[in-house]
Amino acid sequence: MAEDNVVYIGNKPVMSYVLAVATQLSKANEVIIKSRGRAISRAVDTAEIVRNKFISGLKVKEIQIGTETVKREDGTSMNISSLEITLSK
Amino acid sequence: MAEDNVVYIGNKPVMSYVLAVATQLSKANEVIIKSRGRAISRAVDTAEIVRNKFISGLKVKEIQIGTETVKREDGTSMNISSLEITLSK
Repeated sequence: MAEDNVVYIGNKPVMSYVLAVATQLSKANEVIIKSRGRAISRAVDTAEIVRNKFISGLKVKEIQIGTETVKREDGTSMNISSLEITLSK
Repeated sequence: MAEDNVVYIGNKPVMSYVLAVATQLSKANEVIIKSRGRAISRAVDTAEIVRNKFISGLKVKEIQIGTETVKREDGTSMNISSLEITLSK
């Protein structure tokens, strides 16, 4: 599946995402780390910890920023920033 | 000065950084938005708001992630993630 190599960053401790990314990179050559809003800084932490402590020689292939529109429960919508980091071996 | 076109993101409301970046871009063709730790998501918000609401046609020239070592008051050191976004006209 195309989405198989994506790790979404949420509110768990950063080490759970580090392990998810490292596991993914043991099976594939590339992983995409996706994040939105306040989780963005945790996405950068995840990429940096994997690069510096787990898998050396890893390249930051691409970093993209963007804006997504999210619907609130009351029906109004808000814009939220997103960050995607692609790491490759 | 070389550092003139840098905006450092801190704990102020995002709109103060949006205005700093927009002002900078009225005088120069390029601005570098620098951030560390939890301010990283605010840096992405700043870049996206400037691009989408203030100055259209702005390009994301480069995005870099990194790790900086910071000394705590007790003399120990910690690693902190950093994000730099370069916007250009």
